[in-house]
Amino acid sequence: MPYVVVFYDVSDNKRRDLLAKTLQSLGLVRVQRSVFMGRGGYTKAKEAIRAASRIVDARTDSVVALVVPEDYARRMLVYGGIMSDPKQKQAVRVV
Amino acid sequence: MPYVVVFYDVSDNKRRDLLAKTLQSLGLVRVQRSVFMGRGGYTKAKEAIRAASRIVDARTDSVVALVVPEDYARRMLVYGGIMSDPKQKQAVRVV
Repeated sequence: MPYVVVFYDVSDNKRRDLLAKTLQSLGLVRVQRSVFMGRGGYTKAKEAIRAASRIVDARTDSVVALVVPEDYARRMLVYGGIMSDPKQKQAVRVV
Repeated sequence: MPYVVVFYDVSDNKRRDLLAKTLQSLGLVRVQRSVFMGRGGYTKAKEAIRAASRIVDARTDSVVALVVPEDYARRMLVYGGIMSDPKQKQAVRVV
């Protein structure tokens, strides 16, 4: 099963927090402050974008959803840490 | 040819600016404030991570490089705008 990666630039704090909670409720985990990732294909990606469209301001904000095949997601290169590892669904620190 | 997506959380302004310039010099374009993307595979992804490792602080910062097949990159879903479109290498606003 592929992975969905959602990254965003949202200026308003309340909207940004609501988007983060919404992405979490869709089963995605936070990889970085403005990056969420989790299992799913285009249905999940569209769900995330549709949910985002009800929260953020299209004139000032940006939300991108990208579907990535599992083997590509597994070869993700990390320097420093990530907040949670979508492949294990728990916090991880890789240095 | 696949695409490389690099996203980062870097706390120090100087380091963050230097990383952005470095990613640009590797031929990646800025999609969002902390997201760069451009043509390339694992060689380019490793190059980006190696360059980042010389700039950012692994204890506080996070840099991720993900390789994405071309057809998946082309189906990227956008709400709002992106700073530049890596497929066309120029600024674009999609609402």
